[in-house]
Amino acid sequence: MRSPILDYLDAIIAQTAHVVSGAPADYIPELASADPDRVAVAICTVNGTVYASGDADDLFSIQSMSKPFAYALAIEDRGIDDILDRVGVEPSGEAFNELSLDPETGRPRNPMINAGAIAVHALVDDREAPAVDRLLGLFSDLTQRPIEVDEGLAASELATGDRNLGLAYLLHASGRLARDPASSVEGYVRQCSASVTVRDLALMAATLANGGVQPNTDKKLFSRRTTRHLLSVMASCGMYDAAGDWLTSVGIPAKSGVAGGIIGVLPGQVGVAVFSPRLDQHGNSARGVVMMEKLSEDLGLHLMEPGRPSRSSLRETRKEVVEGEPTTIYVLQGDMVLSSIEALVHELVENPPATDVVVFDMSRVDEVLPVARRTAAETATKMIDGGYRIIVVDPEETVPAFHDSRGRSVERWTSERLEAALLSQG
Amino acid sequence: MRSPILDYLDAIIAQTAHVVSGAPADYIPELASADPDRVAVAICTVNGTVYASGDADDLFSIQSMSKPFAYALAIEDRGIDDILDRVGVEPSGEAFNELSLDPETGRPRNPMINAGAIAVHALVDDREAPAVDRLLGLFSDLTQRPIEVDEGLAASELATGDRNLGLAYLLHASGRLARDPASSVEGYVRQCSASVTVRDLALMAATLANGGVQPNTDKKLFSRRTTRHLLSVMASCGMYDAAGDWLTSVGIPAKSGVAGGIIGVLPGQVGVAVFSPRLDQHGNSARGVVMMEKLSEDLGLHLMEPGRPSRSSLRETRKEVVEGEPTTIYVLQGDMVLSSIEALVHELVENPPATDVVVFDMSRVDEVLPVARRTAAETATKMIDGGYRIIVVDPEETVPAFHDSRGRSVERWTSERLEAALLSQG
Amino acid sequence: MRSPILDYLDAIIAQTAHVVSGAPADYIPELASADPDRVAVAICTVNGTVYASGDADDLFSIQSMSKPFAYALAIEDRGIDDILDRVGVEPSGEAFNELSLDPETGRPRNPMINAGAIAVHALVDDREAPAVDRLLGLFSDLTQRPIEVDEGLAASELATGDRNLGLAYLLHASGRLARDPASSVEGYVRQCSASVTVRDLALMAATLANGGVQPNTDKKLFSRRTTRHLLSVMASCGMYDAAGDWLTSVGIPAKSGVAGGIIGVLPGQVGVAVFSPRLDQHGNSARGVVMMEKLSEDLGLHLMEPGRPSRSSLRETRKEVVEGEPTTIYVLQGDMVLSSIEALVHELVENPPATDVVVFDMSRVDEVLPVARRTAAETATKMIDGGYRIIVVDPEETVPAFHDSRGRSVERWTSERLEAALLSQG
Amino acid sequence: MRSPILDYLDAIIAQTAHVVSGAPADYIPELASADPDRVAVAICTVNGTVYASGDADDLFSIQSMSKPFAYALAIEDRGIDDILDRVGVEPSGEAFNELSLDPETGRPRNPMINAGAIAVHALVDDREAPAVDRLLGLFSDLTQRPIEVDEGLAASELATGDRNLGLAYLLHASGRLARDPASSVEGYVRQCSASVTVRDLALMAATLANGGVQPNTDKKLFSRRTTRHLLSVMASCGMYDAAGDWLTSVGIPAKSGVAGGIIGVLPGQVGVAVFSPRLDQHGNSARGVVMMEKLSEDLGLHLMEPGRPSRSSLRETRKEVVEGEPTTIYVLQGDMVLSSIEALVHELVENPPATDVVVFDMSRVDEVLPVARRTAAETATKMIDGGYRIIVVDPEETVPAFHDSRGRSVERWTSERLEAALLSQG
Repeated sequence: MRSPILDYLDAIIAQTAHVVSGAPADYIPELASADPDRVAVAICTVNGTVYASGDADDLFSIQSMSKPFAYALAIEDRGIDDILDRVGVEPSGEAFNELSLDPETGRPRNPMINAGAIAVHALVDDREAPAVDRLLGLFSDLTQRPIEVDEGLAASELATGDRNLGLAYLLHASGRLARDPASSVEGYVRQCSASVTVRDLALMAATLANGGVQPNTDKKLFSRRTTRHLLSVMASCGMYDAAGDWLTSVGIPAKSGVAGGIIGVLPGQVGVAVFSPRLDQHGNSARGVVMMEKLSEDLGLHLMEPGRPSRSSLRETRKEVVEGEPTTIYVLQGDMVLSSIEALVHELVENPPATDVVVFDMSRVDEVLPVARRTAAETATKMIDGGYRIIVVDPEETVPAFHDSRGRSVERWTSERLEAALLSQG
Repeated sequence: MRSPILDYLDAIIAQTAHVVSGAPADYIPELASADPDRVAVAICTVNGTVYASGDADDLFSIQSMSKPFAYALAIEDRGIDDILDRVGVEPSGEAFNELSLDPETGRPRNPMINAGAIAVHALVDDREAPAVDRLLGLFSDLTQRPIEVDEGLAASELATGDRNLGLAYLLHASGRLARDPASSVEGYVRQCSASVTVRDLALMAATLANGGVQPNTDKKLFSRRTTRHLLSVMASCGMYDAAGDWLTSVGIPAKSGVAGGIIGVLPGQVGVAVFSPRLDQHGNSARGVVMMEKLSEDLGLHLMEPGRPSRSSLRETRKEVVEGEPTTIYVLQGDMVLSSIEALVHELVENPPATDVVVFDMSRVDEVLPVARRTAAETATKMIDGGYRIIVVDPEETVPAFHDSRGRSVERWTSERLEAALLSQG
Repeated sequence: MRSPILDYLDAIIAQTAHVVSGAPADYIPELASADPDRVAVAICTVNGTVYASGDADDLFSIQSMSKPFAYALAIEDRGIDDILDRVGVEPSGEAFNELSLDPETGRPRNPMINAGAIAVHALVDDREAPAVDRLLGLFSDLTQRPIEVDEGLAASELATGDRNLGLAYLLHASGRLARDPASSVEGYVRQCSASVTVRDLALMAATLANGGVQPNTDKKLFSRRTTRHLLSVMASCGMYDAAGDWLTSVGIPAKSGVAGGIIGVLPGQVGVAVFSPRLDQHGNSARGVVMMEKLSEDLGLHLMEPGRPSRSSLRETRKEVVEGEPTTIYVLQGDMVLSSIEALVHELVENPPATDVVVFDMSRVDEVLPVARRTAAETATKMIDGGYRIIVVDPEETVPAFHDSRGRSVERWTSERLEAALLSQG
Repeated sequence: MRSPILDYLDAIIAQTAHVVSGAPADYIPELASADPDRVAVAICTVNGTVYASGDADDLFSIQSMSKPFAYALAIEDRGIDDILDRVGVEPSGEAFNELSLDPETGRPRNPMINAGAIAVHALVDDREAPAVDRLLGLFSDLTQRPIEVDEGLAASELATGDRNLGLAYLLHASGRLARDPASSVEGYVRQCSASVTVRDLALMAATLANGGVQPNTDKKLFSRRTTRHLLSVMASCGMYDAAGDWLTSVGIPAKSGVAGGIIGVLPGQVGVAVFSPRLDQHGNSARGVVMMEKLSEDLGLHLMEPGRPSRSSLRETRKEVVEGEPTTIYVLQGDMVLSSIEALVHELVENPPATDVVVFDMSRVDEVLPVARRTAAETATKMIDGGYRIIVVDPEETVPAFHDSRGRSVERWTSERLEAALLSQG
């Protein structure tokens, strides 16, 4: 059976076939000669399966979509504070002000404009290997296949790279470029000339959605905190001038490239990638933007989508006899986030259990946020102090060991022991 | 038992006691004379319970925190396109450029700066009641208690309101103010002088977190789409100049007021409100910002927090005999979002059921996103076409009625019928 | 005989008849209904005679051409330092940034934009009479006839004066408006509604050309220093955005008004005024600009026109016998400015007189700049020290009394005495 | 006898000895190590004599003071329209916006900022010799001595010239640089490294004051129109940000260099140059600015100085008998500018001569502006038409040959003939 998800992606392509406005980038022959009718879309959830439709195996250059990953690598190399000292995180505003150095600090406004991205490239640690080689290695780890530079394209870009050279010399002059201008630009241009497919890009985006962990190899490529920071910057600075427009209409962190690609990330859920070479006046893929809008709408990707009202984590409350004692059993389920733990605690405070023995059955609980972990521990402590005997069934040890003020702690039972105890009563 | 959540909020206040920098707003005596040591914090999940600590019942003026709600009301009144024609959604950039009209369109840059907020106030429908009365009614609906204007404060603000009058006359001169300048400013100033507590504000924020539905009264105050749009604008424009800085460090849509309040919203989860009158150089509550940073960190509120890797919706797969036929039963659970439905479909494609009869038990499913609804229907259709007999147990009718290409449809059973069928085999 | 200067002005009008682009200001009916074909030109040298052609007696409103004169009056009232503290002298640059307050100082950028002109109006001393009455009195002194406000026009301007009210309230809010906003704007609008003709304007401009002294009444209306300062500001800020363009192409301090008038000043020479209601996209009279360009070119008005190479002040050197002594007589003429006095001193240093007696005949000298006065005194002192007997014929006492280091001074003779002494030898 | 002008310059140095604020430029050792106490001043009138005081023979680099001359040379090479298409003439406003390309046209704002000056350097015709060699030749022509590059300085500047390289690459990228970036910057840096003294600079400035003609060699280096245009640009853009401040306080076209020099020009009068290495926060010589202010004040250099009220050109009117006919003789003198010719024509119109024969004795007239030439011809024609017999004594043929409507023309007599005719009557 063909996956209906593939059918859905086919439909996205079919439904956007009328978008033929714009034109491919034409500043170098390699881009100008691209077949403008090529089109592809791919999605990859945090489970790691890639679904793709259209010209999904066509190679094109990653261009500016390389910037987020280089930024994350530089943060991993040097720490976020060091990078923030050198490159800002604010939208650049006016498009024409192409240098976009902050008038007060002299920093490039953000790492998604060229000035900032060149500065970032030069901040990638190159003591053991050239920065561009480390980036290609990173891209390969992200995509699970060897990523290479399109050398013909890189040569053409370099030959017409006066703008980038200009930015690099100005950055160097103001002490904002860690390495020499010419080699920084060469490395940066090669970084941008890496050849990828929408499949590759969807996997790269999915790794960001997955908190920096490649979903198939489980390799931790970026820390959770770096990833979170990067996604924030993509949300406000990724699509150039019209930050507010993108955030209201599509509503996910994204980045486009001049070859026609766009990647987008819904944290915790999915990475998406689209490709169509014709660019609109902002330099974004015209059809790509429309595809992203449809994906956002259909898939409920918008960051501000309020989502499902959180249900209580409390699946059921049962009165039983355990080891001869009347016992209240709270069966918990799902994720323990702020809203669900709040509901549980609310119930305990409002309707304290009428039995001395209380069991929390957490065997159906998926994950526990730190705040829930702490709140659960505090709740249990208070209940022990109040005279309750507390038993937790917590096979994955989501709740930490703890003791009350007099050294008493909760009892930890296995599911089997609880079941046996109940059966012995039955 | 006192709720541990209250203990946590107490701790937030205790841990930020050292933040005594800044000074209360001093442009009118009413604000300058505020006790600068007052402090309060409140949170309210989408379940509607408010937890508050500190001076949680102290009244102070809502000020600019009224702007998001007036903006949402104007959108409800006139439709989003009409409002977008008149007020932009882009961060204003330079702070000193206080008028912040877009040089190309003449629109105020966004509804969170004063020029935009005055324009928005004048766009609230006043045919049946003055705009400010409608806003007070809205605030009362949001907070479940009658909200009133602090008339002494409003009078003082008006007496020193030359800046707002200036903005209003300039807006009117450029055709961007729908009503006359003097009465628009008067209404706007009264809107900003509404007296609220952090409890009120947490409920107001929670309504935004809850997609526009007041969580306790279930009154739908704003559409889901309006709420989503508003939260996007708060994310990029709510905390003045440093959009990128706020988004990276705190990471939630927010809005501050000059009396010292700040509200924040995590869509689908929670609304938070803090209060401390001393302002930093950006005009935001200095201690309030620190409290927000801690809340964001502790409660995992950051929008870009990748969250828990989505688990499969597939709780278990059982082989049984139903009505004499070998049957595969898929027990689903939780929310059906893109990532969970993808996992299920993936399983079906990779390991097609070996029996002719297939049951999908959706009695434990919470909510189904549109994409999942459609994908489920397509999957079922394909399976019927492939010769399977499909039975769904879907008590909440989360999946729509549908037929395959030859008019065949899935069978809908109740949980009881499935249970009985299984028992009859047992 | 009709003056050829009038013929020349007729020709200016004839030669610009093809310039029919643009349209009269249309924001109020009074301006929109102006006959767009009216045209006039007038010039007035520092001798005070006005030459005019075209609709030279048609009345129109002075509008922004009142700004320079109000600025000069405010400087006379309060001193230049006080005014500079409140209003800057820099071109405003971007046109759209309509408020144009300096981001660092909060001052309006210059007194020729509306914000600055309103601030200036409110700085005119009004202790004995309203500012607008004092300005009308000034205009009357400048034009030698009673100047009155077009009250119908003023009423219309006030009714649509939201922009000016907006600017005034913002100025007041930032402490930059000395009086209350509403009455400042009313006074300012009436100032701008004064009715004038090109004849009036040419006389007003000629007074500026003449160092602040009305050339016919000899009334000193502004100090030389105030006038010089004002003309500098008109040169850089008078014609709105394109300061450099105006300065290179026309090259004289100027100011335009929205009713279609333009005045220009060549210091020391002439004031000019043109009128034609159709405005170009900068808000300047389209045909007026072309007339100004022609006047500048034909009349050699450009400030940077190198002018005639200065001739020596030394008309002739004669060897005579005076009172029995061989004597060298230097006959000086014209103005003694830096370049001419330099030529004289150069001659004396290079070719010291061979006689002991030296006469400087200054009876043909027109005016002596301070530098020349001092240099002449020093030169004479040195010559006395060197043993010469120095006689000056200086009927207008252009050179001050002075003594050499031993108390000896030059002798002062009348022209008659010198003539008699020479004749007695003849 | 030592010239009192030299004494005056000594006094300027003595009176500014207290100005020791600021510091020499320190971005390269060559400038940082300059003796900060060196000081010099020089002036040169349009007669060509240089007066200098202080370290007047010390060599220092011309730096940005080379920009005006390169700009004038490029205009001579290509025509002003071509240059205006490529480089603007507007003040750049904000200092930090260092690239200062016009957002609409992409042109550098003006030729006095680095971006514009590099573009200008690359516009100097280099078909017969490198641009920098042509500039050195021009500097040598201006100063009457061979001017050379300080090669050590140039090498240092190039080694730290990242800013200029950055600007050049950006200019090239936007099609605003006529030659390749690296060689353009090298040539530009060498242009700026030319070694000069204040004497040289005073001569260079005096050539601009003299309409482009070197006053001693009479070599026409720039056209009058080019010079006028250049001086306009220096007036508005020469002293960086504070155009209005400089124009009001000093009031002459000027240009500073980072080595501590400043040149200034009063058209038609004088060029001045000062030198002191300590720079203020704007990058201008701190003491140099004070010296310029004093020179402007003392020497009456301010462009807006209203100057001496123009006297009539009419020296005397005599009634005589010439060739037996009663004759009116008008003896004219001085320069015939607008204001003086106006006075003469005014007299002729108001008091037409009562005799049939009229003589205009122009033997004392210095120079005649085009407007006066034309007006004189028209006046004479009208008088012939009116029946007068017109005789002009015009030894320098300042007034053109012309004929009245019936082909009659004025008679041209020599001074001797008139004298003889008068004597024959006497």
